[in-house]
Amino acid sequence: MTFSYTTDKYDQFEKQAANYVPLSPLSFLPRTALMFADKTSVIYGTRRYSWSQTYERCKRLASALQKAGLQKHDTVAVMAANTPELVECHFGVPMAGGVLNTINVRLDASTIAYILNHGEARFLLTDTGFAPAVKEALAEIGRDDITVIDIIDTEAQIDGECLGRQDYEAFIAGGDADFDWQLPSDEWDPITLNYTSGTSGKPKGVVYHHRGSYLMSMGTVTDWNLPRHPSYLYTVPMFHCNGWGHAWTMTALAGTIICIRAITAEAIYALAHEHDITHFGGAPIVLGMIVNADEAVRKPLKHKVEVMTAGAPPPAAILEAVEALGFNVTQVYGLTETYGHTIMCSWNSDWDDLDFAKKADLKARQGAAMVHTDNMRIVSLETGEDVPADGQTMGEIWIRGNTIMKGYLKDKDATNATLSEGWLRSGDLGVMHQGGYMEVKDRLKDIIISGGENISSVEIESVLHRHPAVALAAVVARKDEKWGEVPCAFVELKDGASATEDEIITFCREHLAGFKRPKYVIFGTLPKTATGKIQKFELRNN
Amino acid sequence: MTFSYTTDKYDQFEKQAANYVPLSPLSFLPRTALMFADKTSVIYGTRRYSWSQTYERCKRLASALQKAGLQKHDTVAVMAANTPELVECHFGVPMAGGVLNTINVRLDASTIAYILNHGEARFLLTDTGFAPAVKEALAEIGRDDITVIDIIDTEAQIDGECLGRQDYEAFIAGGDADFDWQLPSDEWDPITLNYTSGTSGKPKGVVYHHRGSYLMSMGTVTDWNLPRHPSYLYTVPMFHCNGWGHAWTMTALAGTIICIRAITAEAIYALAHEHDITHFGGAPIVLGMIVNADEAVRKPLKHKVEVMTAGAPPPAAILEAVEALGFNVTQVYGLTETYGHTIMCSWNSDWDDLDFAKKADLKARQGAAMVHTDNMRIVSLETGEDVPADGQTMGEIWIRGNTIMKGYLKDKDATNATLSEGWLRSGDLGVMHQGGYMEVKDRLKDIIISGGENISSVEIESVLHRHPAVALAAVVARKDEKWGEVPCAFVELKDGASATEDEIITFCREHLAGFKRPKYVIFGTLPKTATGKIQKFELRNN
Repeated sequence: MTFSYTTDKYDQFEKQAANYVPLSPLSFLPRTALMFADKTSVIYGTRRYSWSQTYERCKRLASALQKAGLQKHDTVAVMAANTPELVECHFGVPMAGGVLNTINVRLDASTIAYILNHGEARFLLTDTGFAPAVKEALAEIGRDDITVIDIIDTEAQIDGECLGRQDYEAFIAGGDADFDWQLPSDEWDPITLNYTSGTSGKPKGVVYHHRGSYLMSMGTVTDWNLPRHPSYLYTVPMFHCNGWGHAWTMTALAGTIICIRAITAEAIYALAHEHDITHFGGAPIVLGMIVNADEAVRKPLKHKVEVMTAGAPPPAAILEAVEALGFNVTQVYGLTETYGHTIMCSWNSDWDDLDFAKKADLKARQGAAMVHTDNMRIVSLETGEDVPADGQTMGEIWIRGNTIMKGYLKDKDATNATLSEGWLRSGDLGVMHQGGYMEVKDRLKDIIISGGENISSVEIESVLHRHPAVALAAVVARKDEKWGEVPCAFVELKDGASATEDEIITFCREHLAGFKRPKYVIFGTLPKTATGKIQKFELRNN
Repeated sequence: MTFSYTTDKYDQFEKQAANYVPLSPLSFLPRTALMFADKTSVIYGTRRYSWSQTYERCKRLASALQKAGLQKHDTVAVMAANTPELVECHFGVPMAGGVLNTINVRLDASTIAYILNHGEARFLLTDTGFAPAVKEALAEIGRDDITVIDIIDTEAQIDGECLGRQDYEAFIAGGDADFDWQLPSDEWDPITLNYTSGTSGKPKGVVYHHRGSYLMSMGTVTDWNLPRHPSYLYTVPMFHCNGWGHAWTMTALAGTIICIRAITAEAIYALAHEHDITHFGGAPIVLGMIVNADEAVRKPLKHKVEVMTAGAPPPAAILEAVEALGFNVTQVYGLTETYGHTIMCSWNSDWDDLDFAKKADLKARQGAAMVHTDNMRIVSLETGEDVPADGQTMGEIWIRGNTIMKGYLKDKDATNATLSEGWLRSGDLGVMHQGGYMEVKDRLKDIIISGGENISSVEIESVLHRHPAVALAAVVARKDEKWGEVPCAFVELKDGASATEDEIITFCREHLAGFKRPKYVIFGTLPKTATGKIQKFELRNN
């Protein structure tokens, strides 16, 4: 006998409200506000909120935005430091159906104007501490249809000019504490808009979606081993990849977010001590600050503090010093296009017994794909295949997963160039080690191919920086008839110092393989973005 | 000037392979096998695998199933104890595109036959320890198109009859170690099929999807505060809600799964000691076992062990005793229809300083919606509104979220009755406490409404169980002209004991409000399912 099979028996189900709920980090807030209503949510100076208060303020903000005319998917720009208002915007703006566009507070007026215009902001919530640049930007774009609300930071005693029609507290006071908000109908709906830093031209508007930000939080809890009720010091600017998503993640865990405006070693030690900080994130420069702090400002930690760091890996000496003080450092890697960290140097307990130098080498790696990242490859520029996991062969870092941007706003060409053949092309060069752990070597655009050899501009720059007369250096490729490309160095000298082209080239020859030395050295002030990053694309035009 | 807005600017993006990856717990395995290749994945007696070995075995299984003719969404039934093979099936079967149907090993032959037929199993992997019932079931259905593979448990020295064409090891040896499997194209595709226990009639086939099982794992990591590399003792049968999804969850964390076939206090203490167990889950009976264990078999724990428990809440005395031994108990709630735990009694650190009795009360609550659960309500049967959070007013427990089943296989009516108006109706009655924490009171079908008053059958049963002559008791409603319904007790007496109807009713009157006492007592053997659950629906037909 042959049994009769129903081939479509598993296809006879429909998604319905009971069993299909859009993924959104907004869902974390009502749950935490219900279960942990009286737990402290946000601390900033003398300001302190409970989760029920934070939820109420977010609902008021969402309601106030709708009352002021916000329509679904309108852009709400925010120019703010890491104060409670910016935490609230991460919930209140998307709860109202808006898209949150946090702007780097160090940008110049014309870049701010570009972003407000390109993102088509309907609202601008702006801290009066940044009023001069914002005022100039608003004047430059000449738009009268942006509703401006002022954030007044009384804790930091900021006394800047008010530019808007109302201050933030008055604005949300007009909102409904019982505002009946909804999750987005589609989890792939936009949640935020983050502009790139513009090192390679005009800033591009990276669009995140609810699904990605939800999964980013869950993946971070899993891979960073976050406990319930962490005490998180928010040193990472929330305008940068939404502060790595931690405003949402800490809400999922009913943690306490400690806001900080001016990052100093003294403030970090004091807050860590006072609020029993368990976690924070920051650039390696923050680690240096901690290590080099005056004895007078240091305070003992009550327990190990976990630190997530990104950017250039911390030098072994800094790492050793900071870990001796009771901090445990985990390196991550990502781009604005990947919502922040998507690669993490997850510690393997098999490494516990290695000596410190070996541990520091391992910790300097950017790491492996996080659990919410589908996959990461290092792809050879020559063959298009994965490079061997030999720790040496360079290739471009390609990433795929649910925390890859929807795309660049109103820029299909750039989107298609970056998301191609099923992968995000990071534009960074790395090598692959064993176990899927990679290490970043250089920006792809900054690699110089000379006589068929890859030369890392970063490697030459690090030698140039060791020359006693050099304040700042950048190396780019220059076309060459014989070699294809050759390295060309741009050098900013220290005040009062001097050096000749020959001296610099000779110095490099002593510290580098011959083919890697710059063939040209040009002296002058280097072009930089408002945030101080060198604009190599300007140098290439020279 | 009015700026021109692009109203659809955020809708101009397409999902593509780079930024949209189907959610599936299968994704955990290749990542863990790459990053933690040499870490121990599964231990069973003298058998021990690394994550790279487990991954290879899963790929071989998937490949072997396809070579043996498995087509997309074919059902693969498995009748197995918690051995490494069953862990592997949780990956290998869906990696091949199949749907895993784990069968309760305690079922009788005719129920097994019903499940194999109803689920339209193409394959049956079966442990020879269960050969008698399985052989009878196969004979009963008379199908010759099920490929049967035998699992031979050499560790437990099971010497049962082989029923299939090949044993499991030979079968997977024929599979390809480099099998090129794919994630499902749609994350809502079926991953497993779990039959309900049949306390209310024929078992129903509950279908889970990849998205749900992925989110269940991430939510469990978050709410149970799971660290990297937990050491997990698998006391929960994997045939029960896929063992609460922990085979997948432990893979996400590169943990070690310790298999156990016969659950005894001695085995638990020995394994906890030998393998440094950090987590396990189990019914309250397992807690009782641990507490009541002989001194001789007890071994000290190296650290606190986290225990997830479900079912009837552990009595305060058991809880106190087990916690004194170094176990920390967390109560969860769920149904087969919710993938297992979806409600958890997440500890609030504000409760740390309460006295033990109060803590035990709190720990006896089933808890609040987990982070992956959208919401949970207690809905009044009278008003259809949420009951007040007074800890007293009963209502039905309704749940919504991404870990609610797709539906019952080939049973639209039952699906529609259970998933209705955007909620799963649990059929359980509970009360709501503060903070969204609920407490289960009874099965809805078991509540008796007498003279307008709700009477919990569970409450009467607990009094009956205190009568010295009563071995087992069950209470159901009987129609009554005056009161609508009245309680009717069915009682199984202890061997050699005797009691009259009057004696039992008098005993109840002494311990219960008058209107709650049973009006009838019927003596006899109670009808039970193969797993020992009382079939109240049979009693109602009396």
